[in-house]
Amino acid sequence: MSTNRAVAYLKPGAVEVQDIDFPSLELQDGPGVAAANVGRKCPHGVILKVLASNICGSDQHMVRGRTTAPENLVLGHEITGEVIEKGQDVEFIKVGDVVSVPFNIACGRCRNCKERKTGICLNVNPARPGAAYGYVDMGGWVGGQAEYVMVPYADFNLLRFPDADQAKEKLLDLTMLSDIFPTGFHGVVSSGAQVGSTVYIAGAGPVGLAAAAGAQLLGCAVVIVGDLNADRLDQARSFGCETVDLTRGSPAEQIEQLLGEPEVDCAVDAVGFEARAHGENSEEAPATVLNSLMELARAGGGLGIPGLYVTGDPGGIDADAKIGALKLRLGLGWAKSHSFVTGQCPVMKYNFHLMRAILHDKVQIARAVNATPIRLEDAPRGYAEFDQGASRKYVLNPHGALDNVSPA
Amino acid sequence: MSTNRAVAYLKPGAVEVQDIDFPSLELQDGPGVAAANVGRKCPHGVILKVLASNICGSDQHMVRGRTTAPENLVLGHEITGEVIEKGQDVEFIKVGDVVSVPFNIACGRCRNCKERKTGICLNVNPARPGAAYGYVDMGGWVGGQAEYVMVPYADFNLLRFPDADQAKEKLLDLTMLSDIFPTGFHGVVSSGAQVGSTVYIAGAGPVGLAAAAGAQLLGCAVVIVGDLNADRLDQARSFGCETVDLTRGSPAEQIEQLLGEPEVDCAVDAVGFEARAHGENSEEAPATVLNSLMELARAGGGLGIPGLYVTGDPGGIDADAKIGALKLRLGLGWAKSHSFVTGQCPVMKYNFHLMRAILHDKVQIARAVNATPIRLEDAPRGYAEFDQGASRKYVLNPHGALDNVSPA
Amino acid sequence: MSTNRAVAYLKPGAVEVQDIDFPSLELQDGPGVAAANVGRKCPHGVILKVLASNICGSDQHMVRGRTTAPENLVLGHEITGEVIEKGQDVEFIKVGDVVSVPFNIACGRCRNCKERKTGICLNVNPARPGAAYGYVDMGGWVGGQAEYVMVPYADFNLLRFPDADQAKEKLLDLTMLSDIFPTGFHGVVSSGAQVGSTVYIAGAGPVGLAAAAGAQLLGCAVVIVGDLNADRLDQARSFGCETVDLTRGSPAEQIEQLLGEPEVDCAVDAVGFEARAHGENSEEAPATVLNSLMELARAGGGLGIPGLYVTGDPGGIDADAKIGALKLRLGLGWAKSHSFVTGQCPVMKYNFHLMRAILHDKVQIARAVNATPIRLEDAPRGYAEFDQGASRKYVLNPHGALDNVSPA
Amino acid sequence: MSTNRAVAYLKPGAVEVQDIDFPSLELQDGPGVAAANVGRKCPHGVILKVLASNICGSDQHMVRGRTTAPENLVLGHEITGEVIEKGQDVEFIKVGDVVSVPFNIACGRCRNCKERKTGICLNVNPARPGAAYGYVDMGGWVGGQAEYVMVPYADFNLLRFPDADQAKEKLLDLTMLSDIFPTGFHGVVSSGAQVGSTVYIAGAGPVGLAAAAGAQLLGCAVVIVGDLNADRLDQARSFGCETVDLTRGSPAEQIEQLLGEPEVDCAVDAVGFEARAHGENSEEAPATVLNSLMELARAGGGLGIPGLYVTGDPGGIDADAKIGALKLRLGLGWAKSHSFVTGQCPVMKYNFHLMRAILHDKVQIARAVNATPIRLEDAPRGYAEFDQGASRKYVLNPHGALDNVSPA
Repeated sequence: MSTNRAVAYLKPGAVEVQDIDFPSLELQDGPGVAAANVGRKCPHGVILKVLASNICGSDQHMVRGRTTAPENLVLGHEITGEVIEKGQDVEFIKVGDVVSVPFNIACGRCRNCKERKTGICLNVNPARPGAAYGYVDMGGWVGGQAEYVMVPYADFNLLRFPDADQAKEKLLDLTMLSDIFPTGFHGVVSSGAQVGSTVYIAGAGPVGLAAAAGAQLLGCAVVIVGDLNADRLDQARSFGCETVDLTRGSPAEQIEQLLGEPEVDCAVDAVGFEARAHGENSEEAPATVLNSLMELARAGGGLGIPGLYVTGDPGGIDADAKIGALKLRLGLGWAKSHSFVTGQCPVMKYNFHLMRAILHDKVQIARAVNATPIRLEDAPRGYAEFDQGASRKYVLNPHGALDNVSPA
Repeated sequence: MSTNRAVAYLKPGAVEVQDIDFPSLELQDGPGVAAANVGRKCPHGVILKVLASNICGSDQHMVRGRTTAPENLVLGHEITGEVIEKGQDVEFIKVGDVVSVPFNIACGRCRNCKERKTGICLNVNPARPGAAYGYVDMGGWVGGQAEYVMVPYADFNLLRFPDADQAKEKLLDLTMLSDIFPTGFHGVVSSGAQVGSTVYIAGAGPVGLAAAAGAQLLGCAVVIVGDLNADRLDQARSFGCETVDLTRGSPAEQIEQLLGEPEVDCAVDAVGFEARAHGENSEEAPATVLNSLMELARAGGGLGIPGLYVTGDPGGIDADAKIGALKLRLGLGWAKSHSFVTGQCPVMKYNFHLMRAILHDKVQIARAVNATPIRLEDAPRGYAEFDQGASRKYVLNPHGALDNVSPA
Repeated sequence: MSTNRAVAYLKPGAVEVQDIDFPSLELQDGPGVAAANVGRKCPHGVILKVLASNICGSDQHMVRGRTTAPENLVLGHEITGEVIEKGQDVEFIKVGDVVSVPFNIACGRCRNCKERKTGICLNVNPARPGAAYGYVDMGGWVGGQAEYVMVPYADFNLLRFPDADQAKEKLLDLTMLSDIFPTGFHGVVSSGAQVGSTVYIAGAGPVGLAAAAGAQLLGCAVVIVGDLNADRLDQARSFGCETVDLTRGSPAEQIEQLLGEPEVDCAVDAVGFEARAHGENSEEAPATVLNSLMELARAGGGLGIPGLYVTGDPGGIDADAKIGALKLRLGLGWAKSHSFVTGQCPVMKYNFHLMRAILHDKVQIARAVNATPIRLEDAPRGYAEFDQGASRKYVLNPHGALDNVSPA
Repeated sequence: MSTNRAVAYLKPGAVEVQDIDFPSLELQDGPGVAAANVGRKCPHGVILKVLASNICGSDQHMVRGRTTAPENLVLGHEITGEVIEKGQDVEFIKVGDVVSVPFNIACGRCRNCKERKTGICLNVNPARPGAAYGYVDMGGWVGGQAEYVMVPYADFNLLRFPDADQAKEKLLDLTMLSDIFPTGFHGVVSSGAQVGSTVYIAGAGPVGLAAAAGAQLLGCAVVIVGDLNADRLDQARSFGCETVDLTRGSPAEQIEQLLGEPEVDCAVDAVGFEARAHGENSEEAPATVLNSLMELARAGGGLGIPGLYVTGDPGGIDADAKIGALKLRLGLGWAKSHSFVTGQCPVMKYNFHLMRAILHDKVQIARAVNATPIRLEDAPRGYAEFDQGASRKYVLNPHGALDNVSPA
């Protein structure tokens, strides 16, 4: 138990699997650890044996060099695991529990946590509200694309699966509860979607596909997904979504063909700041998605924006992009009385109920996102293929727990 | 009864009081009337004798030449009056009723109206969802800065005051129910404000002051208003608001002095697209307010945006502004999980309850906005003074109904 | 077109199909018409050719003699039809439209209608808020188990199907939009159910089955239906519900076998005041369902109560029941922080979105309730079989529109 | 520091001030301690020096012998204090903090706490969801009508006042945050009240008066309080409430005189299960209040029910009352589409914002409830006077912290 292998960011375009320290119940100094967090004691924490740990699109922002992530930052914030050790203050979580870890780290004791806004906890990141594992500027908590990881405030943060054996059988679906399934679902819910709504989701990456699956689960009448990537659109169609091919230009006309009108009730941005323009061979154009959604959402509609927008982007296309400023046609949105909901998904608001939906076979999230287990040592390949647009959600499998697990 | 005097827009900087036709229960052709609305029969309408009709900041956008408003457009969408004639389909409103007219015209029969979204009614404006009296691109319904005006769908649109005599005594307060009081209140409510919240309101014009009065009524703990205009800040202080002088630069520091922290729970944009930069002698800079509010609202906070943003602005400062595009630091808002609520206030959602608050003396809205009655013939002076920053809400008094009425 | 056949209540246990007047756009005097409604002009109304008209469990209360319904009252409040004539004030509904009629009649112009509370409209029933077609004490509006029927305030009340031909093909499903599908769904929504919830529905009659289908559509994790009637439980299982056989006594134990705990998140009363005790050969015991649901709903759970409770019941089992008083263990509900939502479903809040779900094949409501078309002349048989517990939803088919229509 | 004086229940009608153990960070065995809670370690707890501890109407239920409270049960769940010692797991609360203690004890780590339902925490009371200090069947946590008390899960439970000195100056107001102010406010909010509502509050004891103050803070248009006790009605009038004298019979007529109609928008039950009938010299009649509120609330209105209803009442007037069953005219409520919200107030949902309202002088809660400090040793007199209907809220002052404090 004295070793730990983990995926670390090296430099733009490169990750590697490294030996790192076995976690302890203290946040040690290391790459990206906020100064005020160094040496932070976590008697409220647990050590997990990682059973599944997904590669996320937001990891790619770092790996592409679009952030200030430091060298050797250990990555990974989509973690499912088994508790192997617990701190003295952990009262309800037990050793042996199989658990999902919300990617947002939260203390459970501040004003925001008490208001269910766990994505912007005030006590876990000295730099700003909100923290996450293995992410730049998010407090320095060590990432979980690893064999073992420490989770603080375990009684509060962890979602315990009711039956460990059942959980292991459904692991490939349940691993989506740590981030993308709640994140996609939050996008849909915050767009105002409900039973019978028509929904357009920009982006058929894993978050977009998870949003689409979430919209179906919610009873939406028509779920339309748009992307520039043909494979991802195929994946969306594989579970009943309608699709819009953005290489063919603006989606309004294609939506009109599907619905008989060029607008939808609700729109979700599952792309974020690295958006590209519509059309073939299009260039990066960060305001494309949001401006497009204001055209496509009907008057009175809502925009859910789980796609990440950042306060600084060293690789931004121009001076505005570098500080996270976008040219938005807000006048259009205002004329249509749109509402806009942004920010990290507060996973804890959704994960219990979505777990129930998975355990009772009401949704097949692993199939929807094309969950693909790979060995921890193969993480560099996973990052590379995902970056090239593979329509897959790569799930690292450090202890073989996924060896015989299929999607539900 | 065969005459009607009304305020019309002539050209940038100029309005005049003209003779126009006495209204009938049909929308006749005229300046700005949408083609498909010409000749529209309104057996569901009533004719009002106008008792009070306010000049609105959004009228100023037209008069300043910042829109495509046509010559001779009759202005006025903040109307309170007495019913003197009714169409055959009007069943519940009676001749003699004293009523408030929501500025948004709504049919009461479309999907949006049924969902209480009367600001974007689908049946009253051929050009787009949503209509208003006397406003460019809003369907061509004749304005009510006049002696008489026609109101369609009267049973649905009108708010009847329970006692006509009492209403006439409180007319200077009740006249604010047609637009700015609900609009300001909507801004506050949609920012997420509640009992005990700290609220910052950008803009101390009438809508900002109405928002402030609304925030107080709602039980907010601290209501802070910011403006560049010293008189308007004095007015805000006169009823217990804290103030921020924007000629002194960014408001964060001043807010910190007031609250001990540089952020508020909730923020309201009561300025809109003609915003100017902070600092002395500042220039127009349309994204100023929204970018500032993202700095000032705490993580998890909301932005209510009743201030008008437009889809086209011929007087815009640059090509972006001319199409209603703003450089917004959405990355900052996203990092703070902000929500944004835009659009015309659906007045009907609020006016009944706010009327009750006025009638039972829970709010002094006329005092808050410094309601100032003037003769209809003095409208040009009212427009000019208001444009120069007078901290007054001018109320046209075409029939002398306000002659002996004081603020509550 | 000068004849009209309709189902009328004769006396306890008896209905018959009678010749009645062809409807006009005026509410004529007749059995059960409120005095103040006699002669009421309805220029806002339309005449429908009835394409489908369902027999409802609440009709049975009248037919069983459990109300003060007068002799010859024409029954029927679940109406789908085609517009064949319209009044002069009808602006948006056209002759030829195929429409669903919400069972609650609403003016669209009063405070309650404006707040979406169309089940308690203030202007359509002189006796109390709320009206319906063909129902005792509900204003006297003539029922629609008939060939033709008049619908007032048509622009507001009617839900127009987007495509008349498509509507006729899905008529057996769409006919459930007038009452039981929204009513069941309202019960589920007002119990607080959401994606992933466990829900218990008391009663497997049509409303209970519609609630179950609605709960599935909403993404609930486990939907459990309880009844004393084996056929109805079979029907519930036919579309994936779990069931509880109430002849075997209290449902807690059976629920524990299903869920591993004896409680559910949310509970729905789809039975109402004619409830019987649990166990074999049980007697009427009106508080049984509500007291049972307080046991079964978890702390913090909600009770949705679409089942009808009345202010007077001539056939009540005792003096309390005769005035609608029930012995409720409210102390238990209070200890568990339960909420209770009662009343007629405001159909208009739900029918548009549920129509969309039907048209896009997201729900098979006709199959769920076992929709069974019968001829208008066979209505007495339908009433009798339904009263004896047939697990069917009888749909009268006065013009043969359902002759070749199958469930979706 | 080795002594502790506390108020204990002796027998029906009698309390006394006793020497008890100084609290430790472990729940020791004692009167009323749930077996499974004996010896429970609380490293997450703190010891408070009690600065103010109120006598509550719900304490009176025990002292009147209407519960199974054991002899020597230490009373008191409305606690404000200063932290003098903290457990090893307490991370954010500091020694010296002045804090308000929500009366509901909550772990901050269970499903209900995460959903903000802290009144029904799953982990603090082995008998049922929900716990409180010094209360029968509520887990056995030692009461705080004492010099010192232990508070578990301190980081989660405690509301820290931002400035200890300011807090001490406003202590007589802030002490109402532990229970009655949030409880009354919750009653008002859960009745659906909002700006402009008319509200009727049954009961002018401290919770009713707090509800009334809360309704005013919320911007309600008319706040009406009913009681049988003339002194309490005087107290309600002292801060601007309208009143209804229930010794004069049913309140409908008196409400009609006040409002011009016999109904209100929203109704609050601040009485609970020991209700008496209306009229002079009336007897106990536990369903009186709820049945009355169904008459008084308008169709579509809501009933907030903070008044306590119990699952067992040894002193109940009949067999039904002894098991917490009430004869409710639910048929009436159903006909009016009423909603009912019951249960312990989840204090944490409200106390932060209400604290802000107090600190910024938006409400004078101590004046509203006639807060009356008395010495700890005088508790028996306080209980007796309160039981006799004194219109006072008695606040125990064990360390003299209230000696020079006035209401705000």
